[in-house]
Amino acid sequence: MTRFKMTISYHGKNYVGWQRQENGLSVQQVIEEAIAKIEGAPVVIHAAGRTDSGVHAAGQVISFDMARAIAPEKLLQAVNYHLKPNLIGVVDCAVAAADWHARFSATRRDYGYRVFNRASPPVLERGLVWHVPKKLDVTAMQAAMALLLGQHDFTSFRATECQAKSPIKTLTHADVSVMGEAIDFFFSARSFLHHQVRNMVGTVVEVGKGKRPADDIKKILAAKDRAVAGITAPAQGLCLLKVYYDPDEPGHEPGAGL
Amino acid sequence: MTRFKMTISYHGKNYVGWQRQENGLSVQQVIEEAIAKIEGAPVVIHAAGRTDSGVHAAGQVISFDMARAIAPEKLLQAVNYHLKPNLIGVVDCAVAAADWHARFSATRRDYGYRVFNRASPPVLERGLVWHVPKKLDVTAMQAAMALLLGQHDFTSFRATECQAKSPIKTLTHADVSVMGEAIDFFFSARSFLHHQVRNMVGTVVEVGKGKRPADDIKKILAAKDRAVAGITAPAQGLCLLKVYYDPDEPGHEPGAGL
Repeated sequence: MTRFKMTISYHGKNYVGWQRQENGLSVQQVIEEAIAKIEGAPVVIHAAGRTDSGVHAAGQVISFDMARAIAPEKLLQAVNYHLKPNLIGVVDCAVAAADWHARFSATRRDYGYRVFNRASPPVLERGLVWHVPKKLDVTAMQAAMALLLGQHDFTSFRATECQAKSPIKTLTHADVSVMGEAIDFFFSARSFLHHQVRNMVGTVVEVGKGKRPADDIKKILAAKDRAVAGITAPAQGLCLLKVYYDPDEPGHEPGAGL
Repeated sequence: MTRFKMTISYHGKNYVGWQRQENGLSVQQVIEEAIAKIEGAPVVIHAAGRTDSGVHAAGQVISFDMARAIAPEKLLQAVNYHLKPNLIGVVDCAVAAADWHARFSATRRDYGYRVFNRASPPVLERGLVWHVPKKLDVTAMQAAMALLLGQHDFTSFRATECQAKSPIKTLTHADVSVMGEAIDFFFSARSFLHHQVRNMVGTVVEVGKGKRPADDIKKILAAKDRAVAGITAPAQGLCLLKVYYDPDEPGHEPGAGL
């Protein structure tokens, strides 16, 4: 068996999210079926981030094993061929060490969230942004983001159904920048709680609207209560940008292009 | 009658281009029908740029007259309501002077063209970019773009069906920049010849591929022959970004927000 690392991009619409579910088509199912056509047998894949319904990915990473001998560049082309009608594509493919795991070996995950901030609705950006018509105060949002940075108990930003063992996470980046009508939020951490990014963005946008002061972030973190934070920002503005792995970790095969 | 100025955004797919045609649905027809529903009578609109089939707009500008008295902000909302199922939207709306004209009063037009430069096909960017798998030499393309800048006879970059009186145009900006996997071309001029931007991009990309040296641009301009330039880049990478008007020109109503 050969373990592969694949980097995947997808548009979240049309899918019930990453994970296989009874109630609809998941990104996982579509990719597993595409790889199974090449393997000639079922294949199980593991993803770095189990994105929710409607969430996009530019650089999702998956691991899986194949018995069939195939060069990574051929595998990339073959999977893209079978994925064709879907808004899902393979960006990169490499051979990995046998004990490397897309989810458990990940050391950092980058998420982007785009708000489209103008009175009239988006056209070219439709489906990839959260439309917020009211002019947002970016300086106030920057102050709020700075208070999220670092290690905190993020219970107030955690979905009630979150299954993580600990609510303590460390945000290594939390920035917001403006590009014309787009306001881009950027978050980095080793891992995130369920809905954490969307709950943080929903709350920071309330700061941007002047509904609460930036300083509220301190109180919200201290309260450890989901009810005191803001709304969950809609899925369609969120994108899993990139996943990082330690090149020196045990199990990594040198020169395998990871 | 009141003359209105509207800024429009649209996704080029699904439409035969800006101009009304027998063979399919045009952006012009969709917008004229939306405005006619509010006016209660047919309305004719004029656009700053008659974009081709598949070409997008972030800031197309139109002018038209209405007999019905309606505030610009109400008109914007009403037209957007009627446009809803379409990938067409009104971004801005203002009252203009009676002799102001979206096409003839324009003093500058900005076009962007996006190439997506990586081996694997785009997913999130699909339909808004030209996918060029081969790694492009951006420095060589920058040199080629610099040679296009300024006033030239652009006959070699002009579609055979172009109806402009003169092939002499002045490019006030011609830049190329890299944003991750996106390579963005930017062009500004008072006006352009038919297919000029797509023919320039097609030729500059051939320079980026190493098929011809940057210096070829000089020879191509001098030849005044469409056959010596490169291919016409596909429509889907092109976007009409912005149109400018002289605020001091006769016919402009001060304070009308143009």
